[in-house]
Amino acid sequence: MAVIFPSRRVRKTPFSPGVEAAGVKGYTVYNHMLLATFFESVAADAAHLKQNVQVWDVSCERQVSIKGPDALRLMKMLSPRDMDKMADDQCYYVPTVDHNGGMLNDPVAVKLAQDHYWLSLADGDLLQFALGIAIALGLDVEIDEPDVSPLAVQGPKADDLMVRVFGEEVRDIRFFRYKRLPFQGKEMVVARSGWSKQGGFEIYLEDGDYGMPLWKALFDAGEDLNVRAGCPNNIERIESGLLSYGSDMRRDNTPYECGLGKFCNSPEDYIGRAALAEQAKNGPARMIRPLVISGEIPACTGSWPLLADGRQVGQVASACYSPQFEVNVAIGMVDRSHWEAGTVVEIETEGGMRQALVQEKFWR
Amino acid sequence: MAVIFPSRRVRKTPFSPGVEAAGVKGYTVYNHMLLATFFESVAADAAHLKQNVQVWDVSCERQVSIKGPDALRLMKMLSPRDMDKMADDQCYYVPTVDHNGGMLNDPVAVKLAQDHYWLSLADGDLLQFALGIAIALGLDVEIDEPDVSPLAVQGPKADDLMVRVFGEEVRDIRFFRYKRLPFQGKEMVVARSGWSKQGGFEIYLEDGDYGMPLWKALFDAGEDLNVRAGCPNNIERIESGLLSYGSDMRRDNTPYECGLGKFCNSPEDYIGRAALAEQAKNGPARMIRPLVISGEIPACTGSWPLLADGRQVGQVASACYSPQFEVNVAIGMVDRSHWEAGTVVEIETEGGMRQALVQEKFWR
Repeated sequence: MAVIFPSRRVRKTPFSPGVEAAGVKGYTVYNHMLLATFFESVAADAAHLKQNVQVWDVSCERQVSIKGPDALRLMKMLSPRDMDKMADDQCYYVPTVDHNGGMLNDPVAVKLAQDHYWLSLADGDLLQFALGIAIALGLDVEIDEPDVSPLAVQGPKADDLMVRVFGEEVRDIRFFRYKRLPFQGKEMVVARSGWSKQGGFEIYLEDGDYGMPLWKALFDAGEDLNVRAGCPNNIERIESGLLSYGSDMRRDNTPYECGLGKFCNSPEDYIGRAALAEQAKNGPARMIRPLVISGEIPACTGSWPLLADGRQVGQVASACYSPQFEVNVAIGMVDRSHWEAGTVVEIETEGGMRQALVQEKFWR
Repeated sequence: MAVIFPSRRVRKTPFSPGVEAAGVKGYTVYNHMLLATFFESVAADAAHLKQNVQVWDVSCERQVSIKGPDALRLMKMLSPRDMDKMADDQCYYVPTVDHNGGMLNDPVAVKLAQDHYWLSLADGDLLQFALGIAIALGLDVEIDEPDVSPLAVQGPKADDLMVRVFGEEVRDIRFFRYKRLPFQGKEMVVARSGWSKQGGFEIYLEDGDYGMPLWKALFDAGEDLNVRAGCPNNIERIESGLLSYGSDMRRDNTPYECGLGKFCNSPEDYIGRAALAEQAKNGPARMIRPLVISGEIPACTGSWPLLADGRQVGQVASACYSPQFEVNVAIGMVDRSHWEAGTVVEIETEGGMRQALVQEKFWR
């Protein structure tokens, strides 16, 4: 494959010097920004992540800052989830939909104040959706992308490393909650969250100038913990059933299809409510399912049709070999007719047809 | 630099097999899609483009389809340009702004019918802005991204090549106008447009299945014209003063700052009108300017501050050596205090300080 160069449009991050020095071997672009895809190899990175601790430059999780007297009103329009239940130190996973219930993004909302929220984005300019609504309705909010670059610390030794840099207080941070903790005199939002199931934190770096000092502090403190630079790991996240917006789900999918129905509990008249209520009642026509694919598979660089009796019954957009579970793990969107665990379907890869077996659940 | 792999999120295009076979050496990502950056070298590609004809996979210029009874109403809200003056076969360059006049994108609008427009996008999900407005106001329009993938044919021999595939009619297509012409029984919008100043066309491929047949037809027909695969060329476009949204201009810039004030002539109450009227009256505080940078310069992978007396007076986000003009050509956003042609400023590159001279005009 060809190489990629950054520009002002395909942005470097405050941690890019650290990522480069750590020997990054692959990049993707996410929210107009570089995101590493592997360092040693995806498999070696995954094995290390599961045993140790890694520091991930996830600056590309750009924030949409929604601030002002109408911030909560706008959040209630954008969120299928009941915003009144959100605690002051809470992070909320918020699948955001259009009027038909089609997913536009699946950000994590961070409540900074009654009148100030961040939406930590998956890949896509949800800022423009929020802005369009606010302008059309004349809402009293400011919507912009602040200088905030998340850095994730992930893995079973994440607590031990974070304590050395931010103090014992980090142990008390509950899942999807945050504390404001100082680093070199600068206060940062530190949340227990991250796009792996290995445990860990996301530090919302405010002010890029503190980026490399923070990076260096974590690596200096973690030498004996075998800390390494890492990134969201495709093997680990498929095993864990963590969905990638744009790949596993898009605007033609609803939260119910993505197994995210539990997050659609708002009593407000949010955008898409009627469509989602209909789907809650009747159930979705297809749903995200774990699959095991037999044989050898090529890299999944697009999507593979799922077939049964020559008819398409879904597709797979994420698949890879799992050294830990010694099978090809995959995430598929599967029609109701074939989504039962134990169902055998065929899958059309660039390397030929393969058999796939619908699983009961993801691997962790 | 590291390599990039496609996924369902970082999409391949209908022409990807052709681009790969032609030996693409660099990619970028644009609207969640692969876009080639060079084949032989940027300089060799530029030299070839100026003498011959190239076929560019610009599928990443994704379309926002706005269709329905309220399509024109929405277009009039989005467009600083007078939509009532648009002819039925016309393409309109439409800098689109927020309520403060800040640029959100600079698409080309294509009028397909009175109630149907495409916005051919620069990098960014302007679809979400249009959708947010439409949902908030309950407009009767459908907004989606259709299966339309533009293919550009650029260079001085573009007319000759296009005639062989689409017939003599292509010669009659005026600049930024289009005709609907058949290819293998499928009708396609063919416009005289494209992101170079070498002349040429953009074919709006509807239905990706016709992609490789169209690609092949153009290469088969153009062998004696020395047709090659190409892509938007960074040298040629800087020489030509073609601006890249996200690099040369962003949301913190207005159309007037970008020299696009002439496109702000709508009498409608469009979004941002008051802010732009204010700027039309007082003039912008900074503006896009061509610059020549002295000495050797590194690759411009972000933005370089422009300095005068130790104070920042602008920045450059696009710069490269031009073999044709034998100088380093650059595009800067320069404060009013220093934008006069002939002004000398300093520029801070990763390779050290350089002198730069503000030019009267771009090189073509």
